[in-house]
Amino acid sequence: MAPSQDSFAPRREAPLFGRLAIIGIGLIGSSIAHAAKALNLAGRVVLYDREPEVRQRARELGLGHEIADSAAAAVADADHIILCVPVGACGPVAAEIASALKPGAILSDVGSVKKSVVEAVTPHLPEGVQFVPAHPVAGTENSGPDAGFPSLFLNRWCILTPAEGADPAAIAATRQFWEGMGAIVEIMTASHHDLVLAVTSHLPHLIAYNIVGTAEDLAAVTQSEVIKFSAGGFRDFTRIAASDPTMWRDVFLHNKDAVLEMLGRFSEDLAVLTRAIRFGDGDTLHKHFTRTRAIRRGIVALGQEKPETEKLRKD
Amino acid sequence: MAPSQDSFAPRREAPLFGRLAIIGIGLIGSSIAHAAKALNLAGRVVLYDREPEVRQRARELGLGHEIADSAAAAVADADHIILCVPVGACGPVAAEIASALKPGAILSDVGSVKKSVVEAVTPHLPEGVQFVPAHPVAGTENSGPDAGFPSLFLNRWCILTPAEGADPAAIAATRQFWEGMGAIVEIMTASHHDLVLAVTSHLPHLIAYNIVGTAEDLAAVTQSEVIKFSAGGFRDFTRIAASDPTMWRDVFLHNKDAVLEMLGRFSEDLAVLTRAIRFGDGDTLHKHFTRTRAIRRGIVALGQEKPETEKLRKD
Repeated sequence: MAPSQDSFAPRREAPLFGRLAIIGIGLIGSSIAHAAKALNLAGRVVLYDREPEVRQRARELGLGHEIADSAAAAVADADHIILCVPVGACGPVAAEIASALKPGAILSDVGSVKKSVVEAVTPHLPEGVQFVPAHPVAGTENSGPDAGFPSLFLNRWCILTPAEGADPAAIAATRQFWEGMGAIVEIMTASHHDLVLAVTSHLPHLIAYNIVGTAEDLAAVTQSEVIKFSAGGFRDFTRIAASDPTMWRDVFLHNKDAVLEMLGRFSEDLAVLTRAIRFGDGDTLHKHFTRTRAIRRGIVALGQEKPETEKLRKD
Repeated sequence: MAPSQDSFAPRREAPLFGRLAIIGIGLIGSSIAHAAKALNLAGRVVLYDREPEVRQRARELGLGHEIADSAAAAVADADHIILCVPVGACGPVAAEIASALKPGAILSDVGSVKKSVVEAVTPHLPEGVQFVPAHPVAGTENSGPDAGFPSLFLNRWCILTPAEGADPAAIAATRQFWEGMGAIVEIMTASHHDLVLAVTSHLPHLIAYNIVGTAEDLAAVTQSEVIKFSAGGFRDFTRIAASDPTMWRDVFLHNKDAVLEMLGRFSEDLAVLTRAIRFGDGDTLHKHFTRTRAIRRGIVALGQEKPETEKLRKD
């Protein structure tokens, strides 16, 4: 294999899929288009977005090989179709494209919630079409067709949640596609995915959105002071709280049970720390602050993050 | 001025202070030692830590010009003395060194809480010694004498909270010292500082410590899964939750009122979002998630953080 122009993953000599259709041209959709084209993962990359101005912008950016004018036109004859729309839109889009899907095609998505997407999409699946749900655990604070870049998935996890009895060949092809973009693929059930992500992603996002809102409502501290002194910790929350509002609204509405369960535990734990502060119980605080360091070490050791001094020194 | 070896800030031709004493050799103390020596901010940099093994390590690292064997020996004849110890230790250390401070000396600190430090230190101040409390809003997740590096304060804020009527010359010299290390200095009252930092730093740290603890306690999701899929948002919290436990215990115990006030607001706000999720109120969620983006834009615009894609692309 020849090194790709972007040199972050090898470019395939023969494409994995003949035609790839991407529905929804946001951060994830445009990043897949960049990577799939650059790495020759599909012979033809066709994109569609329901917003005319997004399609127009995608044409200006030269995303993929073609911007289709309808979802049905995009998916016609496609071998691999990826729904890159907010979780709540997956069902309606599946209903819209169902009759245009060709037998043997593999339908996939990129939703951050899996159980509700499976429930919404499965009833619309035509005979002979395989659904292999996917969730690339990658993102930035930016949204829209301009936000994408080909190495977004490099060394990031992509979780597949195929139903029991799904076609092994379809699962293998989907895995190859994501691995081709540099992702590390893991397979689990949709229910377990939703629980894992509730704690590693959904709860952190809700907390970050919440704390930024709390800061905004203060009268005694001005917004410019909050911005100025954000390096003390707040800054890290604002990055997360700048994520796409529609996408995240849908995530919380569609992973309600797991998120409410995590929120309940979080609030109970916070009550313990609050009480320790109120009554000056330094031992409880110190004990809690010590044990949380272990998880951080695990993350740095696994290479999912560099220790911060290294990053600072590079700046 | 000649460019310094580290080339991040200009090296002074004549030192600002004759002798600088640093009490406590952790991340901040060792970083000041590196910077003050490299940039010629003091003719002689003397350090002391109450732990013999930390003093030993500081000698091996060649920090400053000299490692003293007692706090009194370190501060004797010093023009500028900086307490780089946890907030709760500032009062006792001030009591210990008081009789060794020379008239005309400027005493300072680096605590993340200011009102309680002022209250604890002021009673011990000998005649002729000025106290100019300082708080550099900078840090990493690492602690100890090995963690320091000279550019830690570059382009970071340093807040001074001198008492009303403090000597303008002492304030000016302290400002010059921090500006000499590349920091941007701001002056405010100790009370206002404690309120601003409660929201921009203390609350975020408590929330981060809390969420990491919540994740650790789960039975249905393994710790290795939490670590693996942390890129979904959780990771940013773990960095903060790896901060020094003793330092942070002291911060919460000494800024109790402001932290409890912010915690109360945070919990009320979280109850609203929780309720919106429970009852499927997407509008409330969307509205909240949209307004939090503005603060993020302010932070990126002020240069306190690069947008994330830029960082990713550099990796």
